[in-house]
Amino acid sequence: MKKESLYLKIAKVMEEQISTETLKLGDKLPSIRSVQKLYNVSINTAKQAYLELESKSLIEPRAKSGYFVSKASMRKFPLPSIGKFKASAQEKQPEDLISKVFNTFEDKTISHFSLGVPDKSMLPIAKLNKGVINVVRRLNDDWASYEPVQGSVNLRRGIAKWSLVLEGKITEDDLVITSGAMNAIFNCLMAVTKPGDTVAIESPVYFGIVQIIKSLGLKAIEIPTHPITGVDLEAIKKVLPQLNACCFISNFSNPLGCLMPDEHKIELVRMLTTYDIPLIEDDLYGNLFFGPTRPKPCKAFDESGIVLWCGSVSKTLAPGYRVGWVAPGKYKEKIIRQKLLQTISTPSLYQEVIADFLEHGRYDHHLRMLRSKLYTSCLKFQRAIEEYFPSNTKISQPQGGFMLWLELDKKVDTAELFDIAIKQKISFAPGRMFTQYNQYNNCMRLNYGLEWNAQVEADLKRLGRLIKAVY
Amino acid sequence: MKKESLYLKIAKVMEEQISTETLKLGDKLPSIRSVQKLYNVSINTAKQAYLELESKSLIEPRAKSGYFVSKASMRKFPLPSIGKFKASAQEKQPEDLISKVFNTFEDKTISHFSLGVPDKSMLPIAKLNKGVINVVRRLNDDWASYEPVQGSVNLRRGIAKWSLVLEGKITEDDLVITSGAMNAIFNCLMAVTKPGDTVAIESPVYFGIVQIIKSLGLKAIEIPTHPITGVDLEAIKKVLPQLNACCFISNFSNPLGCLMPDEHKIELVRMLTTYDIPLIEDDLYGNLFFGPTRPKPCKAFDESGIVLWCGSVSKTLAPGYRVGWVAPGKYKEKIIRQKLLQTISTPSLYQEVIADFLEHGRYDHHLRMLRSKLYTSCLKFQRAIEEYFPSNTKISQPQGGFMLWLELDKKVDTAELFDIAIKQKISFAPGRMFTQYNQYNNCMRLNYGLEWNAQVEADLKRLGRLIKAVY
Repeated sequence: MKKESLYLKIAKVMEEQISTETLKLGDKLPSIRSVQKLYNVSINTAKQAYLELESKSLIEPRAKSGYFVSKASMRKFPLPSIGKFKASAQEKQPEDLISKVFNTFEDKTISHFSLGVPDKSMLPIAKLNKGVINVVRRLNDDWASYEPVQGSVNLRRGIAKWSLVLEGKITEDDLVITSGAMNAIFNCLMAVTKPGDTVAIESPVYFGIVQIIKSLGLKAIEIPTHPITGVDLEAIKKVLPQLNACCFISNFSNPLGCLMPDEHKIELVRMLTTYDIPLIEDDLYGNLFFGPTRPKPCKAFDESGIVLWCGSVSKTLAPGYRVGWVAPGKYKEKIIRQKLLQTISTPSLYQEVIADFLEHGRYDHHLRMLRSKLYTSCLKFQRAIEEYFPSNTKISQPQGGFMLWLELDKKVDTAELFDIAIKQKISFAPGRMFTQYNQYNNCMRLNYGLEWNAQVEADLKRLGRLIKAVY
Repeated sequence: MKKESLYLKIAKVMEEQISTETLKLGDKLPSIRSVQKLYNVSINTAKQAYLELESKSLIEPRAKSGYFVSKASMRKFPLPSIGKFKASAQEKQPEDLISKVFNTFEDKTISHFSLGVPDKSMLPIAKLNKGVINVVRRLNDDWASYEPVQGSVNLRRGIAKWSLVLEGKITEDDLVITSGAMNAIFNCLMAVTKPGDTVAIESPVYFGIVQIIKSLGLKAIEIPTHPITGVDLEAIKKVLPQLNACCFISNFSNPLGCLMPDEHKIELVRMLTTYDIPLIEDDLYGNLFFGPTRPKPCKAFDESGIVLWCGSVSKTLAPGYRVGWVAPGKYKEKIIRQKLLQTISTPSLYQEVIADFLEHGRYDHHLRMLRSKLYTSCLKFQRAIEEYFPSNTKISQPQGGFMLWLELDKKVDTAELFDIAIKQKISFAPGRMFTQYNQYNNCMRLNYGLEWNAQVEADLKRLGRLIKAVY
């Protein structure tokens, strides 16, 4: 306990320096070694102090140059609260609410802050179309029949090569192509669990994962999730013996946008390996990082094959293509069998188009632009919310992806607010969608993956006014 | 019992006339009214006698002109036996055998009598390619994002219009697009059953259906299936109270190629309606009929919405597109929810290509050619088998589709024969794949959906020789 208070004390001093602007936006912080000497503490304590500041998003590391005061440190609104561990009986599922929100998607006159994909203005659609025509001409008659169950060799080779972040850990042979990442998760859960099993998930959690879990007759345990550092490892430790699988979005989870630090990933994989518990890792946002480098997935630290690493291009390139994949580790044969009996094979054409896109560096080029657009959009959304929303709003600090999670005054019921907002052609995702319990009723998820313009700003302003009007 | 022997007696007399060629191939039979007068029996008895002859494929009805001696009446080899009702404990699943057969598909030097799709030489691939390019150009940027969960409106409208056989029973709103028919069946089973439930299936049965059933923790009851008239209704009646669902290929089932007569379909739907048991009807071969008209599905006789009618273009047009559908009757909302959580949506592009193909009559045109090719190929295969296979071979009499089911001498183990044949670059589907019990070991399924040529004939000759060699 003594050691803990020491690093917290140091962190607190520096937090004060940042809030009083003794340390200004962009300033370089003293090196960890200087902190060690200055406070006469161990290297570890100094490191922990910086980790604490980083976890609050006050400082950020830059490759090979140390720590800097972050832009996020300038935020006015605090972070949303962390969910409590719930063991209460299962409550009414929010399926009707989810259906209601989904049913508005086709109306193009609505501002879709509720969508789970970036707006198509951010996607290279003309290039993809050209790609389709090229592939049709090239493949001739080879694409109309069933292809290998595991998926296109070209695409698998492309994904393996391009997954630099895994440092050569996977080859084309380790991958299975699926119909999007959700289908990968569905297959993974079918392969590693049986009805009645228990799966740990984040909280708040992407509602699709809860629905899959329920549909397979599984139980979900919601693990409290920190808006910056992700799932709480201590909480997982407590329930480890009950778990049959974990299913987490380790990088920029949906809806919180949190990023598990490498240390947490390493510890998580270590714990799960000991108990031989499979980790279904949904890494579909990993390439949408705002920091200096692409964060590693847990898969990078997995030596025994317990991590089933899932990805897709649905959130970054072509949602409608339904091209995803999984590197299922030691569960590969099971996954292939699952896929065979559920869908036989994945359509070839789209796979080849994506393979081309990867091979010619076009995907990297597109991702660079997309990340920069998303980061700008994120800052503008945050600023607008700080300006137009009630002053007691809490707001997440995503480090990637395109989702904001907002916690409003306890008196606001966002499911009711949705009905009011939709009449004004504004849509968002009410918090109740993201949990199996009766909680997050005063929260909402906003998609900022769209081009910033006067209309968007006006809509956020109106939304802020609607919120202010309800209490 | 008296009545039964009466119609059988009449049928036997006429069977004799056919076998002695008193009634020759193509001859018109006396009208039912003449039979009634001639034998002094009721109309019903006369009808039953003809139904008996039809069920043996000795005669065939032609629209508005009565009954004729059929080509099939000239067959030399008898029909395969009907499976027995098995209640024995579950035996080893044939998954390894299935994987072994599937693993040979990529080798293009092998004669693939084992495939479950027509050869691509029978498919209009150039036209489909042109269709893809047209759609990409037309849709511009509308196809890269998620589309309605239920699937493309154009495609659903096309299928509804073109399902003349349902006589206006379904509209675009009744359909849900899936990733092929297998995926439709998977969704249907997930929607209408829970683990531990019991599903009635054919026997022999398409192995994919057994695998899905097992993977969902369901039990399968194999219903004895007549090679001409399909599932035995009496057998179903016996197990009705135990059933939670049925899953049948009513038109040209795989592997038997049998066709349930309308009377059977009506009676089946009636029985299941009484017990409120859903019928998952896989009608993916229905358009590949050799008779005068497209047979009706059970769905056509369903008034209460218990039939989930599944179809696809995988067996007739574009296997690799993975475009299928289901008209789920009263289970529609459940199916939409299932689809949403498993795959979000189906890729738009292929759906639009198929919709175009339907709209401009190209599909009908293609089907007419395909049916004629398949029928010719079927006759040539049967003739070759009669010539080259042992004389105690039994052979099915498909009335549509592109599968032949062969029963060989009891001493032949077709799983062993497969290993020998594959070394000689000939592949077929061993009978053991098509059941959950230890039976059909001396059976095989042959795909005749390929262009007849000297190579095919030579391969059948070699296969016949291999069979003769093993006993």
